[in-house]
Amino acid sequence: MADKTAITPTRSEDFPEWYQQVIKAADMAENSETRGCMVIKPWGYGIWELIQKDLDARFKATGHENAYFPLLIPLAYLEKEAEHAEGFATECAVVTHHRLEAQKDPETGKTKMIPSGKLAEPYVIRPTSETIIGAAFARWVESYRDLPLLINQWANVMRWEMRPRLFLRTAEFLWQEGHTAHETATEAVAETTTIHQLYSDFLRDVLAIPVVMGEKTEAERFPGAEMTLTVEAMVQDKKAIQAGTSHYMGQNFSSAQDISFVDRENKKQFAHTTSWGVSTRLIGTLIMAHSDDDGLVLPPQVAPKQIVIIPVTPKEESRQAIIDACHALAQTLTSQTFHGQNLRVHVDDREIGGGQKKWEWVKKGVPLRIEIGPRDLESHKVCLQRRDQGIRDKSFLDREEFLREVQSHLDAVHQSLLQRARTLREEGTSECTDLASFESHWSSSDFPGWLLTPWDGSREQEEELSKKHKIAIRCIPISEEVASEAPCILTGNPTTRRALWGRSY
Amino acid sequence: MADKTAITPTRSEDFPEWYQQVIKAADMAENSETRGCMVIKPWGYGIWELIQKDLDARFKATGHENAYFPLLIPLAYLEKEAEHAEGFATECAVVTHHRLEAQKDPETGKTKMIPSGKLAEPYVIRPTSETIIGAAFARWVESYRDLPLLINQWANVMRWEMRPRLFLRTAEFLWQEGHTAHETATEAVAETTTIHQLYSDFLRDVLAIPVVMGEKTEAERFPGAEMTLTVEAMVQDKKAIQAGTSHYMGQNFSSAQDISFVDRENKKQFAHTTSWGVSTRLIGTLIMAHSDDDGLVLPPQVAPKQIVIIPVTPKEESRQAIIDACHALAQTLTSQTFHGQNLRVHVDDREIGGGQKKWEWVKKGVPLRIEIGPRDLESHKVCLQRRDQGIRDKSFLDREEFLREVQSHLDAVHQSLLQRARTLREEGTSECTDLASFESHWSSSDFPGWLLTPWDGSREQEEELSKKHKIAIRCIPISEEVASEAPCILTGNPTTRRALWGRSY
Ligand SMILES: [Zn+2]
Ligand SMILES: [Zn+2]
Repeated sequence: MADKTAITPTRSEDFPEWYQQVIKAADMAENSETRGCMVIKPWGYGIWELIQKDLDARFKATGHENAYFPLLIPLAYLEKEAEHAEGFATECAVVTHHRLEAQKDPETGKTKMIPSGKLAEPYVIRPTSETIIGAAFARWVESYRDLPLLINQWANVMRWEMRPRLFLRTAEFLWQEGHTAHETATEAVAETTTIHQLYSDFLRDVLAIPVVMGEKTEAERFPGAEMTLTVEAMVQDKKAIQAGTSHYMGQNFSSAQDISFVDRENKKQFAHTTSWGVSTRLIGTLIMAHSDDDGLVLPPQVAPKQIVIIPVTPKEESRQAIIDACHALAQTLTSQTFHGQNLRVHVDDREIGGGQKKWEWVKKGVPLRIEIGPRDLESHKVCLQRRDQGIRDKSFLDREEFLREVQSHLDAVHQSLLQRARTLREEGTSECTDLASFESHWSSSDFPGWLLTPWDGSREQEEELSKKHKIAIRCIPISEEVASEAPCILTGNPTTRRALWGRSY
Repeated sequence: MADKTAITPTRSEDFPEWYQQVIKAADMAENSETRGCMVIKPWGYGIWELIQKDLDARFKATGHENAYFPLLIPLAYLEKEAEHAEGFATECAVVTHHRLEAQKDPETGKTKMIPSGKLAEPYVIRPTSETIIGAAFARWVESYRDLPLLINQWANVMRWEMRPRLFLRTAEFLWQEGHTAHETATEAVAETTTIHQLYSDFLRDVLAIPVVMGEKTEAERFPGAEMTLTVEAMVQDKKAIQAGTSHYMGQNFSSAQDISFVDRENKKQFAHTTSWGVSTRLIGTLIMAHSDDDGLVLPPQVAPKQIVIIPVTPKEESRQAIIDACHALAQTLTSQTFHGQNLRVHVDDREIGGGQKKWEWVKKGVPLRIEIGPRDLESHKVCLQRRDQGIRDKSFLDREEFLREVQSHLDAVHQSLLQRARTLREEGTSECTDLASFESHWSSSDFPGWLLTPWDGSREQEEELSKKHKIAIRCIPISEEVASEAPCILTGNPTTRRALWGRSY
């Protein structure tokens, strides 16, 4: 008989419901009374702060600066954009009034708030800041000397989602959006690929998520983009999550927005622009990638607490000495660093049962748990448990030895999560060379994995296949070596092009 | 004849216009096409990031955690609130629709965006998150064991401002809002004063702004608060800016929102709550406090660049050696720290005139400018200029000596700004004991300073005097020693109470 798990249902029983329960058990976020919008609680927000801090340093190291643009976008900006971009998002919150009037109901005595002060020109809450940042760039750029312009914004954005899901798809979400303008296509393409690589490195080295780097097909591209690069993560139900994208817009956007400059030959040119972003969706991705039937599992670099120390105090006479030893250990650990930041350590000395404590931290995904009991105190040992290992696995280490090796224990957790995710992806990806097995694959299992196929079909053919099986080409993977020629699964034409197909969130 | 200044007009010619020009010359922010909303450009946003980083560490060190709550607030929350709080803000952006429909004008061919998808219940964009955080607290708090709850949020908020002014008063602004709930009044009051002191320390030690700490009178209190503590800064036109406030709400707010808990005696109680905040208004305050007729002057801890190194290269043969020396110096400096952070150093090796460079950095308020020319290179010296000193003042220092003392030069800039601001405030504050001179004071000058008076009047008398002279009691200053009894300037009743009156932004 299987052990009872902390999360009900388990992943195999009901993956979507398991996901919600992991978030609840870890106390990360909850739904609010604002439709489709979540409250991000301290444990969830702490993860976001760590994601932000790491990415922000990477953006700055590659020459980007942060700025802040208005939340509300004049409709005129969107009208201009709609003329240039098809598939333009229109599910957004519209502000039409600027005042509330309180009216008292004479019968019930209740106060009602009535919108008043109608705006001559409504605004929308930014679904992205493309247009308003573009308008600023048009003001700022005059000469080639003003380029490149490398701007990032950390902000909240809003899209009216009909089927919200915590972190993965919410009406309001937090994100960063990079917007850059360049003198030449070459420079703008280089920026697009630099960020693509930056995202991939970040996901692997910080979130322990291995991604497939690739290019979107025309059908899946950002509206108006010439090239969309994506990092695609596989999560445990073998679906794909598009974790971050980086777009080269060519001169499409700059000509619509009049982002022009006088070049070195004194001629007017339109700038080449890019945009790129990741969002709180990364938190959903990391939950689905690493967590297990006992709850959240956090890669150490984004764990709000990396180590929790639990005093085990069965006897009153040694109680205080154990608690003191725990605090002393915490203090020593806190002065050590891991990846350039001081270790985040917490002593849980609440007066509640040890089992309850342990399970709380298991469900919150803390990478390392340390217990110190009376015998450990005497023998100068600590009992170490790793979140990536079996729930009953433990090792007893000399206190000094643990202090010397704590970083390598954290690194080991990171590596084991990364390796597990790699294995999942490798086992969840198959090559497929004929249409019959391609078609049967998508109905053969509840969790069909990804298929890599020779592909030379048209946009229409791609869209037809995608619709039929509720799949999409996640990307055309970018790889060092060119694949050998093989017949396209649909057209039979020989091609070196490979398409990666999958279901997705 | 006075020297020409970099900013026109000067402070004494036209203070409000000088303020706008300082922002423009430093490239900190600009107006946008969204009514009353600004674009915060990298130099302005960089200051805000440094403010955030410092305050955030102080909040965490005092036990607070960050979280994030929805941007949109259901009207029902405000209706509940309006029944309890008078003077409730109603100038806010109202979201009434959730979709845009693109319509093509058949004649012009232009696309128009039309709001559609009318919401059954409109939302407002948060003017503050008091109500939506209160609703969350009501869900989260059940027992005294759940208290205290110490939450902070960094967010954008929106109030429909009729007379916007960059940083000081904008429709959208960035801020932090702390919201806490406690078991007892004593604990909640202690929280309120802890944050009051934290704000005062931060303003003095980071922004070099000395503040008056005091309590607001009932007339000036936050709606629904039992006590509002404030830190008041004097700026160079001798007006007051309320730089931060900390409110003790008693049980007023918790009873309206049903934030209740089962206490240690197993009885239901309402929590005692507090709230507190500072905003991008701090940037406006710091500009008006320190800047001069040559532009922005930045206290070193919030300067995006603390040191700018300018190569002076009159001769082609020594050009590269000088530029290399500048970069080498920058690298050495960057590995040093100031108040726990690596020094922020920039080498300006653009190929433009040295005068233009110098003035750009003067106008941006960089604390220390270093020039290295051919002779300096040979003699291992650097030429140091401090932004708080005369524009032509310079000192030649041995390179090694400068490296040893760089932190003390930065500290000296901080101290001199703080001392200057203290002197301004001391010279701008007078004690006043009779009504006649009180009344004449407010019309005697364009920049009347603050008056400290014995005050025992009623709320109505306070409001009448305030309205008549366009002033307000900024606060009842908190001081260690009780003032001697003196007759109230209005009623003549003897009182130990002192009121600080002033004009304000
Ligand atoms: Zn303790
Ligand atoms: Zn250089």
